[in-house]
Parts: sequence; structure tokens; C-alpha cells
Amino acid sequence: MERHFHEDLKELKQRLLRMGLLVEETVEKAIQALLKRDSILANQVVAGDKVINQLEIEIDEMGHSLIALGQPMAVDLRVVTSILKINTDLERMGDHAVNIAERSLIVMKEPVLKTHIHLPEMAQAALKMLKDALDAFVNGDVELARSVLKRDDEVDDYNDEIYQQIVELMQKDPSIVKTGMSLIIIGHNLERIADLANNIAEDVIYMKQGKEVRHHIETQQ
Amino acid sequence: MERHFHEDLKELKQRLLRMGLLVEETVEKAIQALLKRDSILANQVVAGDKVINQLEIEIDEMGHSLIALGQPMAVDLRVVTSILKINTDLERMGDHAVNIAERSLIVMKEPVLKTHIHLPEMAQAALKMLKDALDAFVNGDVELARSVLKRDDEVDDYNDEIYQQIVELMQKDPSIVKTGMSLIIIGHNLERIADLANNIAEDVIYMKQGKEVRHHIETQQ
Repeated sequence: MERHFHEDLKELKQRLLRMGLLVEETVEKAIQALLKRDSILANQVVAGDKVINQLEIEIDEMGHSLIALGQPMAVDLRVVTSILKINTDLERMGDHAVNIAERSLIVMKEPVLKTHIHLPEMAQAALKMLKDALDAFVNGDVELARSVLKRDDEVDDYNDEIYQQIVELMQKDPSIVKTGMSLIIIGHNLERIADLANNIAEDVIYMKQGKEVRHHIETQQ
Repeated sequence: MERHFHEDLKELKQRLLRMGLLVEETVEKAIQALLKRDSILANQVVAGDKVINQLEIEIDEMGHSLIALGQPMAVDLRVVTSILKINTDLERMGDHAVNIAERSLIVMKEPVLKTHIHLPEMAQAALKMLKDALDAFVNGDVELARSVLKRDDEVDDYNDEIYQQIVELMQKDPSIVKTGMSLIIIGHNLERIADLANNIAEDVIYMKQGKEVRHHIETQQ
């Protein structure tokens, strides 16, 4: 029974990792679709959401049956519940990638903005947070997880800056309202992806140390 | 042990219900703050988020220790894991209420829009979904839960309509860009609240019937 449980847990971790890599790739594709005005790529992201949703259900069911049948205690239980939370967060990131892809399809139909907006830089920062949160999970690296938490403010700052900048542009030139709105919504989705990467980093810390870091961090800011 | 577990589970349900009522009240206040241009109410919502966050952590910890110590099987395990999911969803709704309150503070500083936007109607529909999802949880009412799922499209339609309407208004009159942007973001937050009410309704169905309804519903649409 004991050995069985740990084999199943290993398999569960493997599946979560696969899910993580797929979501990472999806977010990256959504951003590339926007930057390269590539509608084929954007449509791939939208269509690919079903696979992510299916993977989420599988991992969720496997995790819950592992708790029910294996009845893990202490550390093992913490690992399984963390995996279930990370799973939910990854699925939500997938939804945000779809939102970005859908908005990028609108942006492509409109003329290119003449002003440079820091959206590519923001996207890179958010994507790096996701990559590092997943690496922290794979290697149980609490230090790396902590570094992810510190970078959330940077992404928030980008988002505020982009918002302000686009509002001003729209006020000056109402012909860009459609593009501007879509870019603001894309920024908002990137910010949510960074928040979810933050959640994953918090879960990695909880998983390794059994300490609840949610909200406490927020309160310190 | 057995009796102990069921007493603790009853207490856990009570706490979740308290959390649910608090979040419902918070969402209602955020909407009232917007409609009545009441900055005191808006600031109350923002300040009250700490209490919701604290409650979430308490319920989360209680639920996990109940799984670890009580080692529930089948139905009982399903109830506890559903409570944990609903807890997360409620906390997220609290965050959306804060977003609405913050945006309403911006809207209050700008002139009133001359065109009627269906935001109050959308807010009522989303709030009713939340109320019914909580009632379905309390009474284990699967039929009511199913009726919540059916109403998600209505809220999405309001959101699309509001978005289109405001984009047109902003294109015609750039002086309303700030208000328009904030109203669109409020609409987006209401839509997310309706999605989360949907999640709760799905969890109620899962809790009562052990059937996974997530994503399958989405695919049918």
C-alpha cells in the first residue's frame, strides 16, 4: 500500500508537470500571436483549451482518489493538496491565454499603434514568473519560489503604466479605442497570469515548509 | 472519532456559510457604492477584504486538518474537498468586489454618463446567481444549482452588450474614456463573479451526486 501510494504520487507529479509545460507553451503562443499578428497561432491557442481542461479534470480526479484511497498524512497530504491547487491555477492560466489570443485576433484587424507600449516586456516578466514557479515546484526550490513572489510588483507596475498610457492615447485619438481596449484587457490577463504564478510559488513554499504564506505577504506590502 | 468528525464537518459548513454571506454582502455593497456614488461604502469594501482573506485561511486550514485527522472516505471526503473549492471561489469573489469598489471610486470623480448602461441589471443577475448558489449549497438543492448554471450566458450577454455600447460611446466622445474604461472593468468583474457562482453550483452538484460537471457544460454550449 505504502509503495503503491508513492508510485501514484510520482505519476501525479509527472502529470502536473506535463500540464505546467503545456500551459507555459500556451501562454507563450498567445503572446507570440499578439506580437507577430499571427491569427493561426491565436486560433491554435483557443482550440487547445479543451486539452488543458481535460488534463485538469484527470489530475483533479487522480489527486482526490489518492487522498481517498491512500489516506496520506502530514507531508504527503500537503503535497497532494498543493498539487490540486496548482492544477486549478494552471487551468485558469490557460483561460487567460485564451483571452489574450481572442483579444489579439481583434488587435490584428486594426492598424498598428504608433506608440510603443511595454506589453512585450510585461509578457516576458509574467512568463518568467510562470517558468520559475514551475521550476521551483519540480526542484522543491523554496528560494526560487520566494524570488517569484518578489517579482509580482514589477508586473503590476507594468500593468498600471500600460493602462495609464493607453487611456491617454484613447483620449487623444478615439480611432484607437478598439485596439486600446484590447491591449488593456491583454495587460489585465497578463497580470492575472503573474498572480497565479505567485499562487503556485506560495504553494511550493507551503508544500516544502508547511507554512501558509497566502495573504500574509499581501498584508506586508 | 466518527462522531467527532461529523461535528467538525458541521462546524466547517457553518463557517463556509458565514464566509458566503459575508462575500454576498460585500459584493452587494460594492454595487451599491457604484450606483449611489457612495465613497464611504466603497472604502468599507476595500478595507473589509482582510476579514475575508483571514476567514479563507481559517476554513482552508480546518478543512485540511479534517482530511488529515478524520481521513474521510467517499461522500464525506467529497463534501470537504467541495467546501475547500467553494472557499477559494468565495475569496476570489471578494477580490472582485474590491476591484469593483476601487473602480467605482474612479467613476465617482467623473461626470455621470448620459446614456443608460445595463450594469445594474447585470449586477442583479450576477448577485442572484451567487445567492442561489449559496442556497443550493445550504439545502443541497441540485435543481437550484442547475438553474444557476443556465443563467451564466445571460450575464455574459450583458457583458458583451455593455462592452460594445461603451466602446461606441468612447469613440464618439473621448472625454468619457476614464469612466468608460472603469465601467467595462466593472462589467468584467461582475462576469467573473457570475463564473465563480457557476463554479460553486458545479461543486454543489459534485458534492451531492459525485459527478464532475466542470468543462463538460462549457463544451456543450
